[in-house]
Amino acid sequence: MRLKKVKNAKETIEESKYVIKNPEENKGCWKKEFNNDNPINVEIGMGKGDFIIEMAKQYPFVNFIGIEMFDSVIVRAVQKLDGKNIPNLRLIRMDAKDIENVFEKEIDTIYLNFSDPWPKKRHEKRRLTSHEFLKRYDNLFEKTKKIIQKTDNTDLFAYSISSLSTYGYVLDDVTLDLQKVNDAENVMSEYEKKFVFQNVKICRLKAYKD
Amino acid sequence: MRLKKVKNAKETIEESKYVIKNPEENKGCWKKEFNNDNPINVEIGMGKGDFIIEMAKQYPFVNFIGIEMFDSVIVRAVQKLDGKNIPNLRLIRMDAKDIENVFEKEIDTIYLNFSDPWPKKRHEKRRLTSHEFLKRYDNLFEKTKKIIQKTDNTDLFAYSISSLSTYGYVLDDVTLDLQKVNDAENVMSEYEKKFVFQNVKICRLKAYKD
Repeated sequence: MRLKKVKNAKETIEESKYVIKNPEENKGCWKKEFNNDNPINVEIGMGKGDFIIEMAKQYPFVNFIGIEMFDSVIVRAVQKLDGKNIPNLRLIRMDAKDIENVFEKEIDTIYLNFSDPWPKKRHEKRRLTSHEFLKRYDNLFEKTKKIIQKTDNTDLFAYSISSLSTYGYVLDDVTLDLQKVNDAENVMSEYEKKFVFQNVKICRLKAYKD
Repeated sequence: MRLKKVKNAKETIEESKYVIKNPEENKGCWKKEFNNDNPINVEIGMGKGDFIIEMAKQYPFVNFIGIEMFDSVIVRAVQKLDGKNIPNLRLIRMDAKDIENVFEKEIDTIYLNFSDPWPKKRHEKRRLTSHEFLKRYDNLFEKTKKIIQKTDNTDLFAYSISSLSTYGYVLDDVTLDLQKVNDAENVMSEYEKKFVFQNVKICRLKAYKD
């Protein structure tokens, strides 16, 4: 994603009720933060937030947390939320590689939408479906591990299938053309809307591990 | 595949030394047929045989068996073999759904190249990677079950990934663009040559199950 400098990004984020400032303090007790026992679904790399905000609106009985590393990106989600009241949504500004410090045995599903493909072999460890990251996710889930990935990048998608499968995940729902499947429940990220408009095919997988 | 009637197909097949007439008689003892202890790799739906013939030439220390249902197709492979001596190659004219009658604990790898996608849901059982077929393959392998599939059909490919994975296979090598991977050892089927010429992307997976 191209990063543009956004004026007062830090202050805007700081003031938002949606952004959790010291997320480590909620580790193991995020259900308390939401004040209910509903499942918690996390999007790693939420970008400008279209997906996670829309999901939170559509599914009030699920809690959603969006994670994003860059101030200049997360601020766009914060601006969209200004004046809105979505009690089942939180945002965290953090690097995904520190995710083990923030969650423990409490996530239901992880979403990976249009993640950076890190195409160079020497950057493999940075891919969000590398074994390095899958190891980080191991202790985050409450019960069955569940990961749902969408991407337009066929190399990343092929990599993810091999990586998840060799790590023990079962791929039980795979499509190489999400538009064709016509899933009425599919919620689009901002990237996805752009790609669909350009007729670029979207790949999606659902993986689980007991 | 469009089937054209081929004159004297039956007779040509009958006379070929490559075509095994009563393959059920070799069940459990195909290594005797080849008179060696080399691994046995089987292509189900070999079409006109370009892949299996070339593989047999390139790998003299592996035995290859091509299976094809239609006289009018297998005869094309037989014609190509006329006058040639490839001792590690055999062909069988049979319906793949009877494969359990022909092999038992003796196959190393199954190849599925550009199989009929049977796109209609009600024909799912006919797809060569359906659980119905995977069950048929269970008892054919000597040790680890190994399946290598190539196809241009992205729906069949996505289906195969889910079907193999939920059946317990691990997908350890997946690509959605085989040309890009530039695998020097890749041997092309007659379909594949056509598709590559047309710039159609080829998907390939390698799956194993212990």
